[in-house]
Amino acid sequence: MDMRELYELCGTAPEVVFSPYCWRVRLALAHKGLDFVSRPVCFTDKEALAFSGQKLVPVLRDGETTLHDSLAIFRYLDERYPGHSLLGGASGESRLRLIDQLIAQDLRPALFRLLVLRIQACIDPADRDYFRQSREKSLGMSLEAFADREAGQAQLARALQPLNAQLAGHRWLDGAAPGGADYLIGGFFFWAWSLGEQPWPEDSPVGAWFRRLLAFCEERLGPVQRAAAI
Amino acid sequence: MDMRELYELCGTAPEVVFSPYCWRVRLALAHKGLDFVSRPVCFTDKEALAFSGQKLVPVLRDGETTLHDSLAIFRYLDERYPGHSLLGGASGESRLRLIDQLIAQDLRPALFRLLVLRIQACIDPADRDYFRQSREKSLGMSLEAFADREAGQAQLARALQPLNAQLAGHRWLDGAAPGGADYLIGGFFFWAWSLGEQPWPEDSPVGAWFRRLLAFCEERLGPVQRAAAI
Repeated sequence: MDMRELYELCGTAPEVVFSPYCWRVRLALAHKGLDFVSRPVCFTDKEALAFSGQKLVPVLRDGETTLHDSLAIFRYLDERYPGHSLLGGASGESRLRLIDQLIAQDLRPALFRLLVLRIQACIDPADRDYFRQSREKSLGMSLEAFADREAGQAQLARALQPLNAQLAGHRWLDGAAPGGADYLIGGFFFWAWSLGEQPWPEDSPVGAWFRRLLAFCEERLGPVQRAAAI
Repeated sequence: MDMRELYELCGTAPEVVFSPYCWRVRLALAHKGLDFVSRPVCFTDKEALAFSGQKLVPVLRDGETTLHDSLAIFRYLDERYPGHSLLGGASGESRLRLIDQLIAQDLRPALFRLLVLRIQACIDPADRDYFRQSREKSLGMSLEAFADREAGQAQLARALQPLNAQLAGHRWLDGAAPGGADYLIGGFFFWAWSLGEQPWPEDSPVGAWFRRLLAFCEERLGPVQRAAAI
């Protein structure tokens, strides 16, 4: 039997994996019912990924095949393991990419603002200088200035509106059963959850959806390891 | 042969139909290669729609079947006229609804801000009091105060970002061929276009996409009638 390996971002505790893009792939593997071995990698441990020809997680190694990029991995999984489609065909893939572009405006930046100091505290001490310098350069301010909770919560509230509207009428973002859109967007919620946070209201359609997604995930992959409080 | 009729919103000139939701259905009918007769209806002419049991356009009458709501019409068309799917199956429909929720935050309100005085000028004089009063009540301000071009352009620029990102790599929002997402979102662009406006930059992926969508539409439905300048 070929071994499937998922290279994913970890903090000081290797069992706490928190990258939203790696979570997408974890959820997609759970959806397909595929086992995998987790290969936790720190931010600055680029050598561990050298075999993939690039520097970003997630990387999936499946027998002789090596892939990176969460949506490219979704496509590979649909081709290699048909049934229970993640993408929903060609137009389904395009719509996932469009949804990904749309949620990049509020959901991702809102959660990053709310999680950034948590990430800085959870990552390996050897990664902290790299993380601070690279992010402060792209943000144009200190992590502490960026981590404005009020601004983050306001942006998150805006980001949750369309998700709550969708989930008020449907059990999953993809309708009656969980699918690619649930994992694409769910990855961001697992990012917060695995870092020990839950900045969305428990008592909301999104809150109920995340609990369903968490149960779906833990049933298949075991308990999610969360970072301890700072 | 059964006659297909599309009841759609018009202005003083009955050939200028401008509702974004009616445009979605026009484009969907063009996609399926289905003929239809346009039945232009003014805002306050509720009697014309009484047969449909509700007051909103678009209404599609197809033989014995009467439908309203653009996405419900997409679903009907896929069931009644299979092939060239609009929705792309159950998860495709859910993703269209999610995209619809996401673009309701910036794209729709930005264009409404930029178009509202144009709408007020184009609609039947008998509709103008109704339109002004109902919209001013829901906006909480006068149409003129709401029609702030600078704010509208800023919000539109934000709304176009994810569309431009998607269209930089793909010919259509739905990928290699136009589909449900192109018509769902395209309806808003035809709203502006039919009112004689084009508030997006011509020289952008979105600008090129709209020209393709316009050519697709005019090839099948004939020239789009646009409102004259105010």
